[in-house]
Amino acid sequence: MEMNTPKRNSHSLIEVIEYNSKKYKEYTTETTKKYNFRLLGDIPEGNVRWINIDGQCSEEVLNKISDVFNIHPLVTKNILNNNQRAKIEEYEDFLYIVAKMIYYSGDELVLEHIRFILGKNYVISFGETKGDVFDDIRDKIRNEGTQIRKFGADYLMYSLLDAIVDGYLDVLEVLDEKIDTLEEQVIMNNSQERLYKIRKIKKILLNISKYIWPLREVTSLMGKESNQLIQPSTEPYIRDVYEHIAQAIETTETYREILTGLMELYVSNTSYKLNEIMKVLTIISTIFIPLTFIVGVYGMNFRYMPEIEYRWGYAITWAIMIAISSFMVYYFKKKKWF
Amino acid sequence: MEMNTPKRNSHSLIEVIEYNSKKYKEYTTETTKKYNFRLLGDIPEGNVRWINIDGQCSEEVLNKISDVFNIHPLVTKNILNNNQRAKIEEYEDFLYIVAKMIYYSGDELVLEHIRFILGKNYVISFGETKGDVFDDIRDKIRNEGTQIRKFGADYLMYSLLDAIVDGYLDVLEVLDEKIDTLEEQVIMNNSQERLYKIRKIKKILLNISKYIWPLREVTSLMGKESNQLIQPSTEPYIRDVYEHIAQAIETTETYREILTGLMELYVSNTSYKLNEIMKVLTIISTIFIPLTFIVGVYGMNFRYMPEIEYRWGYAITWAIMIAISSFMVYYFKKKKWF
Amino acid sequence: MEMNTPKRNSHSLIEVIEYNSKKYKEYTTETTKKYNFRLLGDIPEGNVRWINIDGQCSEEVLNKISDVFNIHPLVTKNILNNNQRAKIEEYEDFLYIVAKMIYYSGDELVLEHIRFILGKNYVISFGETKGDVFDDIRDKIRNEGTQIRKFGADYLMYSLLDAIVDGYLDVLEVLDEKIDTLEEQVIMNNSQERLYKIRKIKKILLNISKYIWPLREVTSLMGKESNQLIQPSTEPYIRDVYEHIAQAIETTETYREILTGLMELYVSNTSYKLNEIMKVLTIISTIFIPLTFIVGVYGMNFRYMPEIEYRWGYAITWAIMIAISSFMVYYFKKKKWF
Amino acid sequence: MEMNTPKRNSHSLIEVIEYNSKKYKEYTTETTKKYNFRLLGDIPEGNVRWINIDGQCSEEVLNKISDVFNIHPLVTKNILNNNQRAKIEEYEDFLYIVAKMIYYSGDELVLEHIRFILGKNYVISFGETKGDVFDDIRDKIRNEGTQIRKFGADYLMYSLLDAIVDGYLDVLEVLDEKIDTLEEQVIMNNSQERLYKIRKIKKILLNISKYIWPLREVTSLMGKESNQLIQPSTEPYIRDVYEHIAQAIETTETYREILTGLMELYVSNTSYKLNEIMKVLTIISTIFIPLTFIVGVYGMNFRYMPEIEYRWGYAITWAIMIAISSFMVYYFKKKKWF
Amino acid sequence: MEMNTPKRNSHSLIEVIEYNSKKYKEYTTETTKKYNFRLLGDIPEGNVRWINIDGQCSEEVLNKISDVFNIHPLVTKNILNNNQRAKIEEYEDFLYIVAKMIYYSGDELVLEHIRFILGKNYVISFGETKGDVFDDIRDKIRNEGTQIRKFGADYLMYSLLDAIVDGYLDVLEVLDEKIDTLEEQVIMNNSQERLYKIRKIKKILLNISKYIWPLREVTSLMGKESNQLIQPSTEPYIRDVYEHIAQAIETTETYREILTGLMELYVSNTSYKLNEIMKVLTIISTIFIPLTFIVGVYGMNFRYMPEIEYRWGYAITWAIMIAISSFMVYYFKKKKWF
Repeated sequence: MEMNTPKRNSHSLIEVIEYNSKKYKEYTTETTKKYNFRLLGDIPEGNVRWINIDGQCSEEVLNKISDVFNIHPLVTKNILNNNQRAKIEEYEDFLYIVAKMIYYSGDELVLEHIRFILGKNYVISFGETKGDVFDDIRDKIRNEGTQIRKFGADYLMYSLLDAIVDGYLDVLEVLDEKIDTLEEQVIMNNSQERLYKIRKIKKILLNISKYIWPLREVTSLMGKESNQLIQPSTEPYIRDVYEHIAQAIETTETYREILTGLMELYVSNTSYKLNEIMKVLTIISTIFIPLTFIVGVYGMNFRYMPEIEYRWGYAITWAIMIAISSFMVYYFKKKKWF
Repeated sequence: MEMNTPKRNSHSLIEVIEYNSKKYKEYTTETTKKYNFRLLGDIPEGNVRWINIDGQCSEEVLNKISDVFNIHPLVTKNILNNNQRAKIEEYEDFLYIVAKMIYYSGDELVLEHIRFILGKNYVISFGETKGDVFDDIRDKIRNEGTQIRKFGADYLMYSLLDAIVDGYLDVLEVLDEKIDTLEEQVIMNNSQERLYKIRKIKKILLNISKYIWPLREVTSLMGKESNQLIQPSTEPYIRDVYEHIAQAIETTETYREILTGLMELYVSNTSYKLNEIMKVLTIISTIFIPLTFIVGVYGMNFRYMPEIEYRWGYAITWAIMIAISSFMVYYFKKKKWF
Repeated sequence: MEMNTPKRNSHSLIEVIEYNSKKYKEYTTETTKKYNFRLLGDIPEGNVRWINIDGQCSEEVLNKISDVFNIHPLVTKNILNNNQRAKIEEYEDFLYIVAKMIYYSGDELVLEHIRFILGKNYVISFGETKGDVFDDIRDKIRNEGTQIRKFGADYLMYSLLDAIVDGYLDVLEVLDEKIDTLEEQVIMNNSQERLYKIRKIKKILLNISKYIWPLREVTSLMGKESNQLIQPSTEPYIRDVYEHIAQAIETTETYREILTGLMELYVSNTSYKLNEIMKVLTIISTIFIPLTFIVGVYGMNFRYMPEIEYRWGYAITWAIMIAISSFMVYYFKKKKWF
Repeated sequence: MEMNTPKRNSHSLIEVIEYNSKKYKEYTTETTKKYNFRLLGDIPEGNVRWINIDGQCSEEVLNKISDVFNIHPLVTKNILNNNQRAKIEEYEDFLYIVAKMIYYSGDELVLEHIRFILGKNYVISFGETKGDVFDDIRDKIRNEGTQIRKFGADYLMYSLLDAIVDGYLDVLEVLDEKIDTLEEQVIMNNSQERLYKIRKIKKILLNISKYIWPLREVTSLMGKESNQLIQPSTEPYIRDVYEHIAQAIETTETYREILTGLMELYVSNTSYKLNEIMKVLTIISTIFIPLTFIVGVYGMNFRYMPEIEYRWGYAITWAIMIAISSFMVYYFKKKKWF
Repeated sequence: MEMNTPKRNSHSLIEVIEYNSKKYKEYTTETTKKYNFRLLGDIPEGNVRWINIDGQCSEEVLNKISDVFNIHPLVTKNILNNNQRAKIEEYEDFLYIVAKMIYYSGDELVLEHIRFILGKNYVISFGETKGDVFDDIRDKIRNEGTQIRKFGADYLMYSLLDAIVDGYLDVLEVLDEKIDTLEEQVIMNNSQERLYKIRKIKKILLNISKYIWPLREVTSLMGKESNQLIQPSTEPYIRDVYEHIAQAIETTETYREILTGLMELYVSNTSYKLNEIMKVLTIISTIFIPLTFIVGVYGMNFRYMPEIEYRWGYAITWAIMIAISSFMVYYFKKKKWF
């Protein structure tokens, strides 16, 4: 609702990265008609192949890929739908994983929908933009001797999820600063804009919470899955991602409580200010209203007003008025009204 | 409470659609006295029969159908009752499923109570109106080669539930827009009507939440049921409906939180406006009240008031009053009261 | 706290209804000294005996009954205590069930505490008044051919619980109307009385919630109990009661949320009205306070006030005052203050 | 925080009550140096021994007792600490149970920390004051033929817990009355003191809730424990205590909700009163401010004011003022402002 | 967010304490290049070795230690990261435990991140400052005959965790006093500063809650773990830490509820004061506004005002004004407005 979705590339490219602990290959293919999709599924023994498809994948291309990797038609239908929540589904020889990615692009928060298919020796990823968030992973693959080169497709999957979760933690760090700034502003100077900002951050946190909770379930299931796709040596890593997600969830909850407190502070500050203003009005009004009445009395034009004629009438009136106002100031001071 | 229930057709028609992967038959029967209900239960091997009864089914007709399909008397009693919550009940050779359907008919939200009986090779559905929401499914059945034609009664059941859940998602989409519009309106211009609108949407969400939660349980049980009625090949589809329901629930929760925030915004806006108005009153009153007192003083008719006779008395009075009011304006500015 | 408890009959009568699918017998016994309680426990094979004791059962009578039916002393102690929550307790050859019954007697909500002992072929019920709520069940027993005559004591137990739960649903229906009326009233015309009514209904719902939650557990345990007392053929009926309870709980929760919303509406309406009134005060005060000052100025009696002598002084003063007030009205209109 | 803790006796006495179904013995020992603690653990076959130690037990004495009954050092350390939450711990041949007892002593709520050790044929209890709450149990033991004399140490333990839980129910009954009184007071006459009272009761309930929740767990574990210390015949009694605790918890929750409602009522009443007062101010101000302006106009001393000279000027002015004020009264009536 | 993190020592020292029930050795090593890390892992049979590393451990040193103790690379990576939540991870031959420690250093609350590795006969601890909180444990180890000398590495681990949890309980005790003081202040004299203090403590409690919840899970898993690292004799101690944590959590929750109540009290007090002030304004205004109007009337300069000429006009005017104000005072008294 609040977040932006990135513009999708209309032309989808297939980016293939293939590696084992010794060799490494990387190329990009346009999905022209002549392309033989069979080749995509033909992975040499011992190699891991990462097939990354950016932009909206056309139904036609997707069907061909599904054919090659033997993907259930329901999954194919799901991949085309950008509106799903994060989840994991276990099929006979692959896992289907959906995740939401968020990151700041400039000042705007972007939400991206990413889907993965994890097979025995391949990962297929479907993003919406050219997934630069994964550049770090590409670099690690390019360098021989990195841990990722020693492990299989499940470790690649872990790396991808880890990058996504790190994105959440980065966004939360930005929000931390924003909340701190906002808090100072609310204490210094209340204005309606602060309220809108509180509200905006609250909605972002609401969305983060919505996206990250199912992700926890995803990693939890991946960790527990008595699945041959996740090797025991990768399990501690999955558990680690799970911990990061738990931390992000906790932080989100904490921030939401802090914002609720900030909201209360804002409301309380507003009513405090009204109070202060009301007090001044009361004191000034309460002092002058009786005095104004007194001067009104001697402004009357009755023919027979004895005080008017007295030599000291004017002076006595002043004395009375000063006495009344002094008493009032004293009374209010005693009541601690100012 | 808020929602409308559709007008029930008083005459019930029995609509029968029967198909297998190759053939397809569709006809409608009026339940006159002469009708031989036995025929209804006589389903050729390999065929799937969908019996759809619109409008309030008379007790007599229902009893005859119950007889044919061997339906438990408690279920028969339940079908006649329009006030049940969504649920699933497992009997020896059929599942009894109750669901609430909601959709917008024009500007009004309509709530319809639908009951299903899923047997080995048949589905009986009891709606309240001519169920146009299921027209898509009818079309798919009519076309040879569609997936629905290849699967059995359990897939038909899935399709029906899926259509119902899609109805929820559609309603939520409409509400999304309404909430967005409402938010803009609250920020622009507060009025009591906004409050009533917030309240109305809140109640709709409350009802949606109430109807969809048990539906989740229904699909969850269908998916888990070690029941012969649901075939393994249909299970991923049931799981998919489950995911959609989970999404609808999440969205509902998110909207409710957003509305709570909107309510707070409304209240805060209202008190903010009061604040603004109070400030103006205070400032103008506080400036003029002392001045009015001063002019009152020299309006008194005492015979002996020395200032009155001074040549510059009037001018000095003006000077004093300008000085006082200037000081006050300065003081309020410094206090950031305006 | 809010609810009334019925006046207990001081003399307890023992009402016995005994039946099987063919015969039916009904009589009432006063528990005089000479009565042979042994006869109570002497139930012919194939018969179901319902022993209903209205009013406060004396400890002496209760002990004799306990002796006959071999009831645990703790249960006997419990039956004498009217202050227990709904519960189910499983003993070797009977179930002890406690339930709270609520119904409207005229305009007052009455709370009644009912206890049941369900044995193999008997039900003993202890009420506080002559339990007219169970008259329907008595009628059904009297008519040969009804379902209740075909089943055993467990079905009788189900019928009794069903009647109690229906009582809750009836009360909730009455509350539904009351809430609707209240809502209209709050929107039309706020008064402190509305608040008391909201509060009263809230407390009733709080109590209903408190009484019905444990009842759910009761039926849930009855349904699951691998107990020989509940026959498989009765289980769907128990499940049905369970569903009704779940519905009552849901409705209660929904009503409570609606009332919370109504409370908010009330508060918001009240502050809205204050706002409206404050606005009028502000506008009128703000317009007239400066004008009053001006006319005060020319009410001063200084000897040397040049404006006083001018031919057009009076007219110019009016012109200035009209200009000031016009500007203010324009300014307030622009600010949308009225 | 709010509750008082009783003054501890500085000298600890060991009170011993020993019984079986036929005999009964009771004596008190001062724990002088010469006392042979071995005797304490020497319990004749078939007897139950209750060792009650009031006041702060010295570490030395406790160590000797621990030695005799073979108590784990951690338990010994725990017994000396008065700051623990209610809990149950299972050791090889005893159960260690901690409970909080609350009761009204005059107008003050007292909190007492009690610890029990339940062995095969003994109960050791450590209280803070002379535990008069247990006098009923002492009396029952003294009378031959009571149930407690027929059962073992586990039934004694049940009786002690039951007495403690009854203490909670008694306190809640007192609070019930207090809340009812408070409610009437809030409706009749709002004052800041009411608020402090609401707050005080809320804190008491918060504490009760805190103390009784873990107690539920204690009895739940005692009931389930496949422990030889609790005999099957005692289990229904434990379950009964559990029910009482559940009832106390429910009541506490209900009271807390009622108090929250009372708080809302208080706040609403306060703002309602402010409203009423504001209305009067507004109406009187709004009526008189324009009139005061008018009379000010004709108090001006301009030489050329034509109205002044008119014969009916004064009368017409009155007429205008009456017209304006009548219109205003009418307008406010129509707006239902008073 | 609110809490301080201690300044880390930049140079890391390795402190080694080695003991068995009879002998004890303690030394410190600087991790210079020449140091042979192999020696660290070389623990004589029957000895327990505690290796404590204060300050930020350099990656190089850590890698060497990891090598010696065969620590998983993921754990090594984790140890370097100061931003993790409390957790426990089970590896083949060690447990990895993370905890947050909090304590007051002067008036500032300090948060320290501590990590432990518990092996069969060693504990490695990584703190941020010289961990003086553990000095008590060091002292106990130095003294022969203490319990810690009799047990193994698991008891040392328990002692360390216990010291950390005691730190939480100490902080909560300080907060208890602060809350009590704050409560008195709020009742005595409301000011905006109180609000900031409430907010500050609330945030501290939020953080404590966040840090201690996962700690509960840690001890719970340690207690249950069918792990050979925790010996049965140590299990009761672990359970005891668990109890302390549960107590800290409960206390935190209670304090948070108390603070919420205090917040309500603050808001209510503020609006109560505004009320009081408004009342005075209303009463004084309402009494004098009509009087001022009356005196204004007779200040008018109309030529023909009959009352002006009356002998008793002035006296009658006073009489009327006294009557009006007396009635008003009476009316307000009756309405209990002051």
